[in-house]
Amino acid sequence: MSKVHVHRVEVCFGDCDPAGIVFFPNFSKWMDTASLAFFMACGIPPWRELVKTRGIIGTPLLEIHTKFIQAATYGETLEVHTSIESWAAKTFRQRHVIKRGDTLICEGTEVRAFCVRDADNPDRIRAIPVPDDIKALCT
Amino acid sequence: MSKVHVHRVEVCFGDCDPAGIVFFPNFSKWMDTASLAFFMACGIPPWRELVKTRGIIGTPLLEIHTKFIQAATYGETLEVHTSIESWAAKTFRQRHVIKRGDTLICEGTEVRAFCVRDADNPDRIRAIPVPDDIKALCT
Amino acid sequence: MSKVHVHRVEVCFGDCDPAGIVFFPNFSKWMDTASLAFFMACGIPPWRELVKTRGIIGTPLLEIHTKFIQAATYGETLEVHTSIESWAAKTFRQRHVIKRGDTLICEGTEVRAFCVRDADNPDRIRAIPVPDDIKALCT
Amino acid sequence: MSKVHVHRVEVCFGDCDPAGIVFFPNFSKWMDTASLAFFMACGIPPWRELVKTRGIIGTPLLEIHTKFIQAATYGETLEVHTSIESWAAKTFRQRHVIKRGDTLICEGTEVRAFCVRDADNPDRIRAIPVPDDIKALCT
Repeated sequence: MSKVHVHRVEVCFGDCDPAGIVFFPNFSKWMDTASLAFFMACGIPPWRELVKTRGIIGTPLLEIHTKFIQAATYGETLEVHTSIESWAAKTFRQRHVIKRGDTLICEGTEVRAFCVRDADNPDRIRAIPVPDDIKALCT
Repeated sequence: MSKVHVHRVEVCFGDCDPAGIVFFPNFSKWMDTASLAFFMACGIPPWRELVKTRGIIGTPLLEIHTKFIQAATYGETLEVHTSIESWAAKTFRQRHVIKRGDTLICEGTEVRAFCVRDADNPDRIRAIPVPDDIKALCT
Repeated sequence: MSKVHVHRVEVCFGDCDPAGIVFFPNFSKWMDTASLAFFMACGIPPWRELVKTRGIIGTPLLEIHTKFIQAATYGETLEVHTSIESWAAKTFRQRHVIKRGDTLICEGTEVRAFCVRDADNPDRIRAIPVPDDIKALCT
Repeated sequence: MSKVHVHRVEVCFGDCDPAGIVFFPNFSKWMDTASLAFFMACGIPPWRELVKTRGIIGTPLLEIHTKFIQAATYGETLEVHTSIESWAAKTFRQRHVIKRGDTLICEGTEVRAFCVRDADNPDRIRAIPVPDDIKALCT
């Protein structure tokens, strides 16, 4: 079982497009924020700390899949409900459900991996096995 | 057969995150830009014109699915190769392949619908059948 | 005397750049959000309501002036303290002071005008005299 | 005398707000991109190279001042004309004029400093004297 974390978002004027609704990549941005908020709520330090102690720069995305059900606009408050759907050896699937009150706005999954800089070429990053202690904190 | 349009993107410093790589929602933004560039290259006016003549406010997203293969960073030029994979009655699936030279950076599909404002409630938008003339221009 | 409104911002990973600090245009975005939050806290409806009742599309910017004193990063909470410094016939100067606890992060002023669409050319917008009732609500 | 560099920007749908015009912080983003493009056009490597060879992480902003003259919208191409207005011991003032054809859209100045990470506390950054060789390349 995964923990579930709820992250609140206040939609801003500048998050919306000429159609007056949230420009959809912002939903991905909010899911990313909710992803880190989930880990921090589980007791894991922010990446800028973890990069110093363990070399982990974050959890870059391998894949995203999002369905948009209802539009949202500025002045509204949304809730992102975040959990971890499944763990693999080197990746995990995080799930985000975004609601406005009881209305489902959008939902999606992200496949992510804990990554470090390559020792031979610091411009490259590579996935590491999911750390057991981090996994334990999230479940 | 769909036409294919190539949209160039120069990655900016501000598009990148503390890991030094493109913050992934920007790929969605560039695919959105490439989507409109595709339609305009096919001879369809920008949405701000189409809303006046036909009420069409754009092609909001119903679903996105993206795979991230390689990281990219600022100072690099990317190409988004855009086509339409399939048409349904009220939706269509657009495909975007983002490359840096011959290197595949990411690829994804979007399900979109041509939308108008609801006559009874202009705050709501709804999908209309894909206009035949627009479809003809894209194929 | 102007009212003062405090708007809270949680800095996100995606708000930061490869130097690991807030990408500065985001401070402008937060000031813009704080500007609207100020008006709404004073009892003025959001622009999407006001455009229907009075044609006012918002308060576009004529000028901004911002000083950046300290860097901020993700995981931090900032407070934007917003007030109106002065009113002119068709413009007003809004002031924003952004703090992290007692630390001053940045501060700036914006010159804005209440704008409507031009009756003869809806693609153009033009400033109107500051509405007295709105001014009264803010002071 | 400063060199002048011209950086082109294609305005995207997602750069525009519910009023249908460019959301103003994007002008700051484009000026930032034009700032780096100016230095690279003068023969200076991107910051991710310079940080390795000389510790310089970039040119963070101390102050910005921008005037917005005309609105712009998506589908338009803008030109950012960038030069260096003046040099001080540890700072410089960069000037950006943004045009659409012959129409002035906005113009502004930025005060920036070349910065390195503090040796004692890598979370802090500090300004260094403007490097003579970089100054020479820009004039």
